[in-house]
Amino acid sequence: MPYADIIVTLKPTLLDAQGRVVQNALLSLGYENVTSVRIGKYMRMELAEGEALERQVKEMCDRLLANPVIENYHFEIHRDSDGNGTPLVLPTTE
Amino acid sequence: MPYADIIVTLKPTLLDAQGRVVQNALLSLGYENVTSVRIGKYMRMELAEGEALERQVKEMCDRLLANPVIENYHFEIHRDSDGNGTPLVLPTTE
Repeated sequence: MPYADIIVTLKPTLLDAQGRVVQNALLSLGYENVTSVRIGKYMRMELAEGEALERQVKEMCDRLLANPVIENYHFEIHRDSDGNGTPLVLPTTE
Repeated sequence: MPYADIIVTLKPTLLDAQGRVVQNALLSLGYENVTSVRIGKYMRMELAEGEALERQVKEMCDRLLANPVIENYHFEIHRDSDGNGTPLVLPTTE
């Protein structure tokens, strides 16, 4: 069964308050070499077999899963029968 | 500067209520071929140069970033000077 791995991240110019809180928590635990933490969402979506899955997932991201004003998204569609064992390869956020 | 890409997911045996809500929203938008949605966290952490970054990030995940009772995590450390342009390669969740 095909599945999509989707990552939604806050645009790089925006302050990530949640990431800042995590960074401060790590600093207070003694991890002083953490210079930045940014937090996003990861989604694993299983899909029935079909045509044009890329176009469809892009549409879902635009309509519901990401807020295009403040967020970027990346996704990869995998068509493996088992849905396991394949590496997720995603471009880094711009 | 090195950076870590971390993905934290709910263990597969646990009900993902948030994912279920997203799946229902997608169904109500007409995407009837979405058979499952599971939602996790994605973190991009920038680190100062140092030794044993893998061990350190694993420790951060165990101590703060993931709840080992209900969550799994995966991470990749990239040592590129620019921090851009390299694909994130992550194993799929078991």
